[in-house]
Amino acid sequence: MTFQPAEFAARRRRVKEAMSKAGFDLLVVCDPANMEYLTGYRGWSFYVPQAVLVHVDEDEPVWIGRGQDAAAAHMTTGLTPAHIIGYPDDHVQNRTKHPMNFVADHIRSRGWERASIGLEADAHYFSLRAGDALRADLPNARFRDCDHLVNWVRIVKSDAEIALMREAAKLVDLAMETAVDRIAPGVRQCDAVADIYGAQVRGTPAFGGDYTAICPLLPTGEGTATPHLTWSDAPFRNGEATIVEIAGSRKGYHCPMARTVHLGPPPQRLADTAKVVVEGLHAALDAARPGSTCEAVEAAWRAVIARHGIRKDSRIGYSIGIGYPPDWGEQTASLRPGDRTVLEPNMCFHCIPGIWQDGWGIEISAPFRVTDAGAERFCAFPEELTVKP
Amino acid sequence: MTFQPAEFAARRRRVKEAMSKAGFDLLVVCDPANMEYLTGYRGWSFYVPQAVLVHVDEDEPVWIGRGQDAAAAHMTTGLTPAHIIGYPDDHVQNRTKHPMNFVADHIRSRGWERASIGLEADAHYFSLRAGDALRADLPNARFRDCDHLVNWVRIVKSDAEIALMREAAKLVDLAMETAVDRIAPGVRQCDAVADIYGAQVRGTPAFGGDYTAICPLLPTGEGTATPHLTWSDAPFRNGEATIVEIAGSRKGYHCPMARTVHLGPPPQRLADTAKVVVEGLHAALDAARPGSTCEAVEAAWRAVIARHGIRKDSRIGYSIGIGYPPDWGEQTASLRPGDRTVLEPNMCFHCIPGIWQDGWGIEISAPFRVTDAGAERFCAFPEELTVKP
Repeated sequence: MTFQPAEFAARRRRVKEAMSKAGFDLLVVCDPANMEYLTGYRGWSFYVPQAVLVHVDEDEPVWIGRGQDAAAAHMTTGLTPAHIIGYPDDHVQNRTKHPMNFVADHIRSRGWERASIGLEADAHYFSLRAGDALRADLPNARFRDCDHLVNWVRIVKSDAEIALMREAAKLVDLAMETAVDRIAPGVRQCDAVADIYGAQVRGTPAFGGDYTAICPLLPTGEGTATPHLTWSDAPFRNGEATIVEIAGSRKGYHCPMARTVHLGPPPQRLADTAKVVVEGLHAALDAARPGSTCEAVEAAWRAVIARHGIRKDSRIGYSIGIGYPPDWGEQTASLRPGDRTVLEPNMCFHCIPGIWQDGWGIEISAPFRVTDAGAERFCAFPEELTVKP
Repeated sequence: MTFQPAEFAARRRRVKEAMSKAGFDLLVVCDPANMEYLTGYRGWSFYVPQAVLVHVDEDEPVWIGRGQDAAAAHMTTGLTPAHIIGYPDDHVQNRTKHPMNFVADHIRSRGWERASIGLEADAHYFSLRAGDALRADLPNARFRDCDHLVNWVRIVKSDAEIALMREAAKLVDLAMETAVDRIAPGVRQCDAVADIYGAQVRGTPAFGGDYTAICPLLPTGEGTATPHLTWSDAPFRNGEATIVEIAGSRKGYHCPMARTVHLGPPPQRLADTAKVVVEGLHAALDAARPGSTCEAVEAAWRAVIARHGIRKDSRIGYSIGIGYPPDWGEQTASLRPGDRTVLEPNMCFHCIPGIWQDGWGIEISAPFRVTDAGAERFCAFPEELTVKP
């Protein structure tokens, strides 16, 4: 177990407090990051429906998943055996029965069929059919979207979690060094990415890395106009930029980072924009103090770029912590106008004010922790346009 | 573009034929593999809602995604610019507006608000909230689950797709060789996985590999009792088995494979079970001929293991092709009792009859293509328990 039983107890207590406040008796938790947060469960089984049930009156949650994954729940959680329940394999990808029919049966068997039930209605692995199955099978329950209730509890980290984030930061620093070292004219993109993966996972002699929730993103050349392209086996070319957005993951805790590498002397436009981006990034981090808000952090960035005639409509960051594919963001607070989330110590963000224009772009980011003394950077890699002459 | 325009035209024609047969005017396609199949779109943007709209009366589909990803759609698809639509960034992870509200507005603007609309109700990235938003915004439309309509069209591959599957097979053969080479007593699991990733992505001098939909799965020691555990930074130990389930991915097309590696002389139980599994695997592949069914393939396996007193309740395989996280299966046909899908040439499966017992387990698998002459194996790696003395 990565965390002490007392840490899990504290997490569950905070979740149940939030449930009571929101009027929920029962939560059906299907986001794998939330399932891990509440129980320690870790396994690549989230391609089939599974859930952790949290009832306000129960000490221990219930894990329900595919039968063949129940052994993984016994191995990775501290749950007592009676709280680990496997469903029959014929529920997998079947037109006529769904794992959530099984979950509904369990809810009924516990006498919770009239409960006020919170659903993670916009979680990645909670499908329309899953939600419709629960609602049809439990017509007397009162269902509501819990609005990412567990994700919002996760937003303030414990010291044990911060320790893992720091190790993840070392992993991404190492992986970014590898990326910059390997990106060179004539080198195939896939060969550089092979070494990036190697650095992410091999880690240090003291600890290794886990899979990251997003694969290495590597827009290159004209592809830098957009953030989410991946590599090919074509070579890097002199005179072109490459955006590298990667993370380190330590036991599922993610520290992401982005840099832009230019091969050869950069165009003036890119060099000038890099200076503005870094100035704006620093202004944003300077504004990230307890009591401030997410929108105030973004406003500090916006003021800088406006002075230089640059405009950006998309958010410049998001909360980070445990990450599962397809995202290492926590899907809660965003650094953008209108987000009045008040910053507290041990909130963690990835500030990534990417600029994507017609045919070119730039990303220079900073993952950070909110402390009483302001933003504390996780990473050591220089915050600048990386030029390889 | 990986495929010729004629191939995309043929795919869309088959999808529209299936839509007409099922009575759908419009399909809202949110599975990223289906989006790529219909348009060529490829980018790691599926952590936010996005869709391809296919209308039976329209030649060209419409791509709707996040604004910053529209440039990726222009670069990776052959869609005309008017058919690529970006939604404003404030729709991302926002409690008060959802990208599917934007999609509903577009549907209304095209005059399709009374259409018979097919939803991918159990796709991984089509959430309950996404479905509820569409249904609430378009009260006069008739919505039904399309039951993985596009996935079912994908099940029979073109020759161009098979060529990519064969390249993916070379990648996984290479990666499995690397895995077996690196797994040794005292070696950290993360160091072996770093090299597995390297082999998957570096590929051959002729072509590189893409990210795979599932990270390397690596249950070891007692962990082999369950299939979906990943690695740690602990060392492999002599006298223990490790299950390696990995894939090669070539432009998103996946060829998965599983093997079990034992360090030192294997226990008799494991060696005996391996022989039964291989015999059963061969029987299953021998039964995989056009005109046969998925359940007949499984029955051939089951007959073998029953003779040896082994029982297995879970499916022994699934259809493969394009894969996106979290799964490289196509979510259509399964090799199991009750699945009467009739085999046709150029269907592709991963036959993976895993045995998981109390404290131990074994996986030896075979990805294959159905041909007129029977099952054709994609991979060359020996089908046996791998023992490193």
